[in-house]
Amino acid sequence: MIVYLNGSYIEQDNAKISVNDRGFLFGDGIYEVIRVVEGNYVLAQEHLDRMDEGLEALGINLDSSTRQQVLNIGQELIKENNLEKGQASVYIQVTRGAASARSHTFPDPPVEATVYLSAGAFTPHTQLHKEGVPVITVPDVRWSRCNLKTVNLLPNTLAKQRAKDAGVNSAIMIRDGVITESPNANIFGVKDGVLFTYPATHQILNGITRQAVLKIADQLTIPVVLEPIPEHKLFDQDELFFSGTTTDIQPITEVNGKKIGSGKPGKITQRIQEAYDDLLMNK
Amino acid sequence: MIVYLNGSYIEQDNAKISVNDRGFLFGDGIYEVIRVVEGNYVLAQEHLDRMDEGLEALGINLDSSTRQQVLNIGQELIKENNLEKGQASVYIQVTRGAASARSHTFPDPPVEATVYLSAGAFTPHTQLHKEGVPVITVPDVRWSRCNLKTVNLLPNTLAKQRAKDAGVNSAIMIRDGVITESPNANIFGVKDGVLFTYPATHQILNGITRQAVLKIADQLTIPVVLEPIPEHKLFDQDELFFSGTTTDIQPITEVNGKKIGSGKPGKITQRIQEAYDDLLMNK
Repeated sequence: MIVYLNGSYIEQDNAKISVNDRGFLFGDGIYEVIRVVEGNYVLAQEHLDRMDEGLEALGINLDSSTRQQVLNIGQELIKENNLEKGQASVYIQVTRGAASARSHTFPDPPVEATVYLSAGAFTPHTQLHKEGVPVITVPDVRWSRCNLKTVNLLPNTLAKQRAKDAGVNSAIMIRDGVITESPNANIFGVKDGVLFTYPATHQILNGITRQAVLKIADQLTIPVVLEPIPEHKLFDQDELFFSGTTTDIQPITEVNGKKIGSGKPGKITQRIQEAYDDLLMNK
Repeated sequence: MIVYLNGSYIEQDNAKISVNDRGFLFGDGIYEVIRVVEGNYVLAQEHLDRMDEGLEALGINLDSSTRQQVLNIGQELIKENNLEKGQASVYIQVTRGAASARSHTFPDPPVEATVYLSAGAFTPHTQLHKEGVPVITVPDVRWSRCNLKTVNLLPNTLAKQRAKDAGVNSAIMIRDGVITESPNANIFGVKDGVLFTYPATHQILNGITRQAVLKIADQLTIPVVLEPIPEHKLFDQDELFFSGTTTDIQPITEVNGKKIGSGKPGKITQRIQEAYDDLLMNK
């Protein structure tokens, strides 16, 4: 697999970063994952805008020519790796770069940011989207700047692994008595025809697919309330689903071994799935 | 500088890790910094014990022969880099390793952990220890497993940089109205001859130097109360100081531009400094 690292297109096995890279030492960087369908990006500008916000928030300077080229680099990887047919995803990671000495404070003078992109084939979880998935609840132990898509992802990996160990698909994270997110997706509930989801504060990542769902709901005239779902109302929900770039619209049919609604993907979830599928396929 | 990476002693400039290393992609690893005085480790066993706890908590399998050799590897680096005279520090980082594909869940089957050690000369901040330092307060936005010494250090780097930008030495982090830690040290207050510090919960790292201070206080019959210092009592403190492996015992003489106590290092802080200096120098 050919990847991009700091100006070069190289075999992934040869793509190495310095032990001084602040991504390795501090998790000091951001990332994005963009979906690609038949060689075309999906919602690319939205991902780039969020990337810019993250770089700005962390004070990472990505040189403007690389910034301008990011989508082209991804396209080149799509081509180089023969991913122009079917589905794929492009992964982008930017860290603050490699300083000569380890210090919590930013390198002064600044060093060049590390820029890494990869592209791989992607198979949508079509069967799971039809059937729904079981999940567990776990405490949300993340920091309080979850709006930033950084590579400080340890709590997310631990929660996802805990779900795997429990034999389920993923986890619903609970903070202060309310549902926040999954380790890698946003969460929506449906109650009496109304869509509920956590508002875009510092406590969640404002997912690109989440934003697409909100637009779809508007188009389908499904009422939306941007309020967290309390944990104690989890089993009152008629429907529950994840949204995410690689998760798509994923019905949640069971939480901690108990059914949500009928235990099958709900009608509103399915309407949103169809509309989101149209968006993905550019219909 | 010669460093150790996965079995090899090599020039740091040649020490490279895979872009697939989970340290780089997720901050999925732990680290330790051990002080070295005249070629001898200080409190090495305590650091190793904490490293083991971190590896256990994250489910990272470090092969037992490497685990047994960690201190020897550091000693070898001390020798190779001519650090046997004066002071030095050894940095140890262990990540979950490089999987072939990026996935939040742990590689299955597991991959070999990445083990990186470096050693460098260290100059104690003797003048600052005598004079004290100014700091600012910042919100503690870290996750809620701060007891683990992981490389998910973004909030720490941001807080430290904020202090630097404010022209001060470091920051005091505040969570839920109480003082927790600095970005890289524990915090103690002294009020009416009693030492106060945050108890060793999930909200702070149980620093090795913190533990040494508690032992010293016991030996010097200084009463200790393991209770957080409320933010509103910050300026009631007679003395305030940081403790840390590279921070040593560092008096804090000013917070947000206002003096603590007399604005000079306090008497109890100085007694603890002397005792800790004896411990460092193995007197």
